[in-house]
Amino acid sequence: MSKPRILVQLDPDAQASVFDAVVAVDAGVDHLLQYGRVSPDQVQGLVHGAIFTRGPQDLKNTAIFVGGSDVAAAEELVKRVLASFFGPLRVSVMMDASGANTTAAAAVLAASRHVPLQGATAVVLAATGPVGQRVVRLLAREGARVRVGSRTLPRAECVCEQVRQRVGSAVLEPVATAPESMAGVLTDASLVISAGAAGVTLLPAETWQACPTLRVAIDLNAVPPLGIAGVEATDKAVLRGEVTCYGAIGVGGAKMKIHGRAISRLFESNSQVFDAEEVYAIGRELQG
Amino acid sequence: MSKPRILVQLDPDAQASVFDAVVAVDAGVDHLLQYGRVSPDQVQGLVHGAIFTRGPQDLKNTAIFVGGSDVAAAEELVKRVLASFFGPLRVSVMMDASGANTTAAAAVLAASRHVPLQGATAVVLAATGPVGQRVVRLLAREGARVRVGSRTLPRAECVCEQVRQRVGSAVLEPVATAPESMAGVLTDASLVISAGAAGVTLLPAETWQACPTLRVAIDLNAVPPLGIAGVEATDKAVLRGEVTCYGAIGVGGAKMKIHGRAISRLFESNSQVFDAEEVYAIGRELQG
Amino acid sequence: MSKPRILVQLDPDAQASVFDAVVAVDAGVDHLLQYGRVSPDQVQGLVHGAIFTRGPQDLKNTAIFVGGSDVAAAEELVKRVLASFFGPLRVSVMMDASGANTTAAAAVLAASRHVPLQGATAVVLAATGPVGQRVVRLLAREGARVRVGSRTLPRAECVCEQVRQRVGSAVLEPVATAPESMAGVLTDASLVISAGAAGVTLLPAETWQACPTLRVAIDLNAVPPLGIAGVEATDKAVLRGEVTCYGAIGVGGAKMKIHGRAISRLFESNSQVFDAEEVYAIGRELQG
Repeated sequence: MSKPRILVQLDPDAQASVFDAVVAVDAGVDHLLQYGRVSPDQVQGLVHGAIFTRGPQDLKNTAIFVGGSDVAAAEELVKRVLASFFGPLRVSVMMDASGANTTAAAAVLAASRHVPLQGATAVVLAATGPVGQRVVRLLAREGARVRVGSRTLPRAECVCEQVRQRVGSAVLEPVATAPESMAGVLTDASLVISAGAAGVTLLPAETWQACPTLRVAIDLNAVPPLGIAGVEATDKAVLRGEVTCYGAIGVGGAKMKIHGRAISRLFESNSQVFDAEEVYAIGRELQG
Repeated sequence: MSKPRILVQLDPDAQASVFDAVVAVDAGVDHLLQYGRVSPDQVQGLVHGAIFTRGPQDLKNTAIFVGGSDVAAAEELVKRVLASFFGPLRVSVMMDASGANTTAAAAVLAASRHVPLQGATAVVLAATGPVGQRVVRLLAREGARVRVGSRTLPRAECVCEQVRQRVGSAVLEPVATAPESMAGVLTDASLVISAGAAGVTLLPAETWQACPTLRVAIDLNAVPPLGIAGVEATDKAVLRGEVTCYGAIGVGGAKMKIHGRAISRLFESNSQVFDAEEVYAIGRELQG
Repeated sequence: MSKPRILVQLDPDAQASVFDAVVAVDAGVDHLLQYGRVSPDQVQGLVHGAIFTRGPQDLKNTAIFVGGSDVAAAEELVKRVLASFFGPLRVSVMMDASGANTTAAAAVLAASRHVPLQGATAVVLAATGPVGQRVVRLLAREGARVRVGSRTLPRAECVCEQVRQRVGSAVLEPVATAPESMAGVLTDASLVISAGAAGVTLLPAETWQACPTLRVAIDLNAVPPLGIAGVEATDKAVLRGEVTCYGAIGVGGAKMKIHGRAISRLFESNSQVFDAEEVYAIGRELQG
């Protein structure tokens, strides 16, 4: 008889996320161990408790989820988790703070249903945040040429540099974005994805609607006004002119499915690490 | 197949209540998410995690319990919970900090088995506390004329005012109580309920035993000396002279049953809010 | 139908132990209530929640585990737990902070498979720590003559005094230990157990290998260099010359089995208290 599935939820926030907990339960976790306000120095002890309790053949029934709202803090926890393993004494780990990996994966998958990503010219707005950076990574791996947008060029260049370190083959171009210069930024683009914060319009409606090559526009901010004016948060493959549009709520269903499937996949072996790429691959399988 | 029942336990105390947790488990909750030291500003994020994870048809399988020992702090959390819902995106909520709602409901239900509440004259001692106020509310809704007792008249008046805001039809009379004046306060009363703190005698034994109209005396403090001298904490419908007496332990069994039933009722739909009145209605059904 | 098994995990550490949690789940606990950063003054409220919720016949399905890394802090919590019970209103309790009880029990049981403890001369090195003290206690109860070793004689004497208060029949001899004097300390001994901290060699290999009466050497430190040079952490009944050797990992399997069995035993009645002796007795049964 196999051991119960235990998920150790590590969260840097003061209270461990209810969102992450409910998704875990619905993904079939038997026992959820919630840890909030987790600091990096506490990780080793918690991880050792996870790897030194069950036999090697049962370790796949224990897994670690690192979530919460602070992606940078969560990434530090993941680094500590990985450093706490002892060779084969390890358990599978997923990072999805702020939904960054599942959101980026769902957005790129949505786009891929409407334009071939290989060779496409894609524009990512507000690419400096955790979701934006992951969208750039995933698009670059799929062979798109990505214009990496930020309101200041140095920040865009910094993201390009970071993505190139992970994706050697990436074809990236940093661009400084401002609403009035967006027509140029969109030249020849078939795809634009905006991952900006709430309430800042990055791309005027008339600009993208006048771009003859554009086929897909995705905005990942749920609170109006969106970064891409003219897209609605609830858009889910809504055709506006020639452009298929998605909003945050429109990609939310796929995002949730990917999240749940990824959690249940954690328990298939004890050596998986799910960051953006792995989560994206799971999403592709789900998409069939 | 229906989703597992998840109860989110929000507690302002430093450690989430074990009491509330055990009752939840015994009421059939599948997964309990315990949150202690919850501050009002943390509520929105936690509630959004509860309402944005499951589809509308499954939201009834998630619920929120607000408990702990501090009723005022819990009421503030409930207010924040309700303010965090988005129209139909909501889950059912129960408040029972300090057992205030279940205790008040059990006490008034016990009384109702021995005297018709409609038109009865009832005296509530130490009515200013959270249990006392709720007893006044429930009695007033049942049509009793309630003497609202406090050691200082202004505080009694304040409670009357608060109850009138909730129960427009309430017939209330504020009374300043002192042991030596209790004979007058009890005049024509058929029912007295004391909700005072530990160790203060509010009503001497000879006074209530000499009241010819009195039929029921209930004391909700478990630690002697009780507020109503001559009643024992373990009294459960014990007849002393002509008066049927209940102590805190005597109403405790019914209180626990009401608490458990209310928890399982939370999962019948996603839009319920259980405060004193709803908990009392559940208790009435249980009483048959 | 019996109630779900609830284990209340009380832990003085900032985060409740994952280790203790996984063992509890694998021992069949249905609902684990984890409490970290538990201070002594919080214990009464938590314990009252455990004992005032279920009826007397169901109390055996609730139990308390006190764990974490700090044995002294955990012992203080256990004292508060026991003081919070009301006669028959109690639940079973196990203490195993830092694995002290299960480790000591597993070590003494391992020794007992190779030498009769009754009448044996045993040496315990680093006997002043929580594991060492428990090893002394268990050996003394089994009728061994125990040399209680510490690097300073007064500390060794102090441990002897504490053990004598618990085990009236104990035959103990405090000894100041230094690597160069260990030949004398081992005279006539058939058994040596070291419970020292990481990285300090207490007993040179040539000394114990030259002791003609020695039959068993057990070192409970998992991180090299071990206290007993020449023993490996993974040794599990490894014969080195005439001496059967065990390291920390070698006794770890039995320790885990004892821990798990003890947790499931907690739920057999509501009045058990598991400290070293009770845990050892459970281990003896497991050993058959």
